[in-house]
Amino acid sequence: MTVDLSRLSLNTATTKALTLEEAVDVAARAGLGAVGLWRDRVAEAGLERAAAVVREAGLRVSSLCRGGFLTAVDPEGQRAALEDNRAAIVEAATLGTRELVMVVGGLPANPSPGQAALPDGDRDLVATRQRVADRIGELVPFAEEHDVRLVLEPMNPIFAADRGVLSTLEQSLDLAADFAPESVGVVVDTYHVWWDPKLASQIARAGAEGRLAGYQVCDWVLPLADDSLLSRGYMGDGYVDFPTITRWVASAGYAGDVEVEIFNEQIWATDPLEAVRRTAAGFASAVSPHLTA
Amino acid sequence: MTVDLSRLSLNTATTKALTLEEAVDVAARAGLGAVGLWRDRVAEAGLERAAAVVREAGLRVSSLCRGGFLTAVDPEGQRAALEDNRAAIVEAATLGTRELVMVVGGLPANPSPGQAALPDGDRDLVATRQRVADRIGELVPFAEEHDVRLVLEPMNPIFAADRGVLSTLEQSLDLAADFAPESVGVVVDTYHVWWDPKLASQIARAGAEGRLAGYQVCDWVLPLADDSLLSRGYMGDGYVDFPTITRWVASAGYAGDVEVEIFNEQIWATDPLEAVRRTAAGFASAVSPHLTA
Repeated sequence: MTVDLSRLSLNTATTKALTLEEAVDVAARAGLGAVGLWRDRVAEAGLERAAAVVREAGLRVSSLCRGGFLTAVDPEGQRAALEDNRAAIVEAATLGTRELVMVVGGLPANPSPGQAALPDGDRDLVATRQRVADRIGELVPFAEEHDVRLVLEPMNPIFAADRGVLSTLEQSLDLAADFAPESVGVVVDTYHVWWDPKLASQIARAGAEGRLAGYQVCDWVLPLADDSLLSRGYMGDGYVDFPTITRWVASAGYAGDVEVEIFNEQIWATDPLEAVRRTAAGFASAVSPHLTA
Repeated sequence: MTVDLSRLSLNTATTKALTLEEAVDVAARAGLGAVGLWRDRVAEAGLERAAAVVREAGLRVSSLCRGGFLTAVDPEGQRAALEDNRAAIVEAATLGTRELVMVVGGLPANPSPGQAALPDGDRDLVATRQRVADRIGELVPFAEEHDVRLVLEPMNPIFAADRGVLSTLEQSLDLAADFAPESVGVVVDTYHVWWDPKLASQIARAGAEGRLAGYQVCDWVLPLADDSLLSRGYMGDGYVDFPTITRWVASAGYAGDVEVEIFNEQIWATDPLEAVRRTAAGFASAVSPHLTA
């Protein structure tokens, strides 16, 4: 069986052990059309060189991961976050992608992802979400100057305390509504949103508004891993209904790359070529047949 | 400091090591006004005797946990689920509570809570949710005959695959809308819904519709426990903004009991009197002051 993998994008988080050069090589040899890049791998390679490596391999950059962490209360923390996000915007533009994925950050009471709450920490979720909206508003003009879109990523509520206070696609689209669709979009990551009762209607809305900036696929597997961030699997190994969600995404007019971003210790420990082969097989069986509306 | 604990209810899941008689004794001696009962503890004590024990201690039964698990595809599984839920309805009525909490069940692809998906299992979440609505509709007349309310419990999406496909309060209220508010209600459990961007508006809606049938409190703590079901803490130990959510519940007109249901191995291993003391302290500091609108 020959499957067209031209819309499949390998996110460098899936092949964590590889350098950017190695990940690009694996993706190109497997016949994929794109890569999704994390900033740490780009920094290791050097920004200009990273851009050249991807270009020379004939691949697209489907997105840069990630901007965000915008929830600081103190002015110094807010200044630092804006500065870091402006750097990410420049990197995205240099790498030739319009889509900068934003993981917006958790509650101030969280000292760092996965850790216990500070006893006297700030747990005001409503105010924290408002700060995210305020910071996005401050970043939009700079993003527009660089022709980069801030792509809001609603995250599974399992991460609401410590990684991302945007929890649903509807909430993300409500936030985005104050801005042009070319400036603020959303990404649908099945791991984060597969459970959402309003997923069908909000994917359609994202398409109709011109904000559907990315489609990321990986599966929700049980039992949860010790580190829940890593509790992801190949498409088909868990509980996500990929055919249905993929048809919703296709019906919404999405014609971009499908990025596979799997955080999983076991997968990281396997041969990267085998990981890409399994990724392509899951894509071919559960996703690809449903990508054309 | 003397705190009025008359609206505090001890759920027997919080003091798992105790028999029903012991839990009732602990709750009464601590000055609580009510207990929330699990069916396993009731069955051990015997239904009539359980009712008598609570009555003689001068306590209310704030709710019976739990009915549900309504997602079977096969007719035999559906018949068995209806039969079990009718038994739970009779038990609730006998125990003197109107509120039967419904944990509606997960996807057919889930063989049992916490376990990996069946490779060829049914992952159709939309259809599964429709079956829940169908089964609720079939149970309502029997519940009405016994003056018992089916109380839908939206569950944290971490449990959507294996325990409860109702994931938000809005979704639960949409399902309930086909029925009288005396017949189908909702419970707000902070552990399950604290992250919901629409929580304020949907709690207000639940109150306005007369469907706010319970308020359960426990905290979202990190790091997650190995068994995520058990990853709950005393109020104040985690990330939930109890003052804010409690004010929303009070403003919605809720005047019932506040049930503390904490699944936590560490808490189960402590002296039950100490667990109740900690529970009362968390209630007094984070919840009670905000209970009057």
